[in-house]
Amino acid sequence: MSKKLAAEIKADGSFNRQTNRFITPFGNGPDELPVEAERYRLLWSAVCPWAHRSVIVRRVLGLEEVISLGTASPMRPKIPQVDWEFSLDEGCVDPVLGIRYISEIYKKTDPEYSGRPTVPVIVDLKEQKVVNNDYFRLTNYFETVWAPFHKENAPDLYPESIREEIDSINGIIFNDVNNGVYKCGFAQSQEAYEEAYDKLFTRLDELEYRLSTQRFLIGDFITDSDVRLYATLIRFDAAYYAAFKTNRNRIVDFPNLWGYLRDLYQTPGFADTTDFHAIKVHYHLSNHIASNDQKSAGILPKGPDLSGLYSKHNREALSKSEEKFLKK
Amino acid sequence: MSKKLAAEIKADGSFNRQTNRFITPFGNGPDELPVEAERYRLLWSAVCPWAHRSVIVRRVLGLEEVISLGTASPMRPKIPQVDWEFSLDEGCVDPVLGIRYISEIYKKTDPEYSGRPTVPVIVDLKEQKVVNNDYFRLTNYFETVWAPFHKENAPDLYPESIREEIDSINGIIFNDVNNGVYKCGFAQSQEAYEEAYDKLFTRLDELEYRLSTQRFLIGDFITDSDVRLYATLIRFDAAYYAAFKTNRNRIVDFPNLWGYLRDLYQTPGFADTTDFHAIKVHYHLSNHIASNDQKSAGILPKGPDLSGLYSKHNREALSKSEEKFLKK
Repeated sequence: MSKKLAAEIKADGSFNRQTNRFITPFGNGPDELPVEAERYRLLWSAVCPWAHRSVIVRRVLGLEEVISLGTASPMRPKIPQVDWEFSLDEGCVDPVLGIRYISEIYKKTDPEYSGRPTVPVIVDLKEQKVVNNDYFRLTNYFETVWAPFHKENAPDLYPESIREEIDSINGIIFNDVNNGVYKCGFAQSQEAYEEAYDKLFTRLDELEYRLSTQRFLIGDFITDSDVRLYATLIRFDAAYYAAFKTNRNRIVDFPNLWGYLRDLYQTPGFADTTDFHAIKVHYHLSNHIASNDQKSAGILPKGPDLSGLYSKHNREALSKSEEKFLKK
Repeated sequence: MSKKLAAEIKADGSFNRQTNRFITPFGNGPDELPVEAERYRLLWSAVCPWAHRSVIVRRVLGLEEVISLGTASPMRPKIPQVDWEFSLDEGCVDPVLGIRYISEIYKKTDPEYSGRPTVPVIVDLKEQKVVNNDYFRLTNYFETVWAPFHKENAPDLYPESIREEIDSINGIIFNDVNNGVYKCGFAQSQEAYEEAYDKLFTRLDELEYRLSTQRFLIGDFITDSDVRLYATLIRFDAAYYAAFKTNRNRIVDFPNLWGYLRDLYQTPGFADTTDFHAIKVHYHLSNHIASNDQKSAGILPKGPDLSGLYSKHNREALSKSEEKFLKK
């Protein structure tokens, strides 16, 4: 395990994710990041659930022309182990930023930066520096203060009247599910692993029950919470189940969660931003960020069979609306 | 990977299981092993599918008092990596043979023995040496020449009239399923892995179809072939799926194979010789026999949920007989 990651393991062997360093909000206040078209670049890797959520929301809201996207490889570079590399680009360099590793822009911004160089990260192209890597709030900025740049008829993923409910469920999903799978995969003691495993599946059981009577997490429409849950569920059977030992059940074993996942997957912005090959390559072959699974000797699992993601789900019957999205 | 195991990897990265060294048959011929009660000891480990089949047949036929059983630990010793150790016994020594490692009795029998010391192995207590480690034929000896010692009303697992059919399907199951999962797990090239994976699942699809119209592999009764298939299927979801990357589907995803597996599991001699804890500990934690999965940093997966093994299967409807076993 790298030293950077070791700093996130507590004495009892449990995983304690680093906090974000760049959390200045977007907005119109004097100390906020100005909302401007073509000023920022979003860096992600298709493997990363934290980055994936922001890329889904960017597409659903039609912000592609407004905020550009740089895509790092699913394979970690050999050194430094926790970095991300633009090895999918010509010359292994991001064509806009001219950097090979995402750590470069972090270091350029703050030479003292000692955390992991994470995605998603927003780079200000004018200042040529990192301005925000707050994966928890980033989608909310896209959904609110970025509204002037949304496409016509963009949905409301974060309606004001139910924001408290969305925030509340986002907190639960973060702790027990989004980060819960990492707590299983990165635990360095059997006890810490089992505690995280139990919490994760207890929560999935609750979500399974919740989704038995409503189409989406908050009701009839897709909200920010669904994007967050999706990013973990879609990686579950293909990666976490084996690589992070979250193997009580797969998602296909939960009738409602599985129907819900297909429903989302079949929605524009979801399948088209989901790259299973990248996900599998990263979690099964890129062993440089040491989870408690030491990965394989270069053999990529051929399965699982994910063809069922396109099958009919009949979840429309649970909703009063014919639309999946709430129009503003 | 240990040198002994490396000798079983071909140039193209595929796994080529070693042949057995001790294959003298049991029987009444001058050069055969005499069939005598309390003369032999069967050594096994509960993790090993090759040994498990002989322990199931021993129990189903009632040979427990006739052939004694020594049980090695599911955890491989550190050195030598491919050995088996009696660490479950007092003083880490088999109480009958007085040995700590199974390699000891192999070496005592043949100081030149250079293969892996495998289970199952039959030790002649009179001569204090290995006389048979022929996992492929061992159950057939128990079923035939050992008949004088069978319990009253013992079933016929290898009826003479259908032996050719049993042998034929045993060959197929051996190559593509029993050994097929190892070919996936031990492959050292992506091509060799994918070839084994495709053969395995093509065969499972065929068996799934076969078992849609008949209760057991050969028809209405459990035979030697079912014991062989069981030993692999029962380990599939708990071990091979993740540890050997046999992850197109799990057995629970095949309606007929899953019903068939529950049917067998609920038969005396099957569940009671199946030790899931040992199986999981071995395949997930004991990394000394190097498959292409490098195993975990000491974290044992808590799943999968196997409680469904006791659920109703309704496979009786496929059989003309009310009995699972053919009486002699």
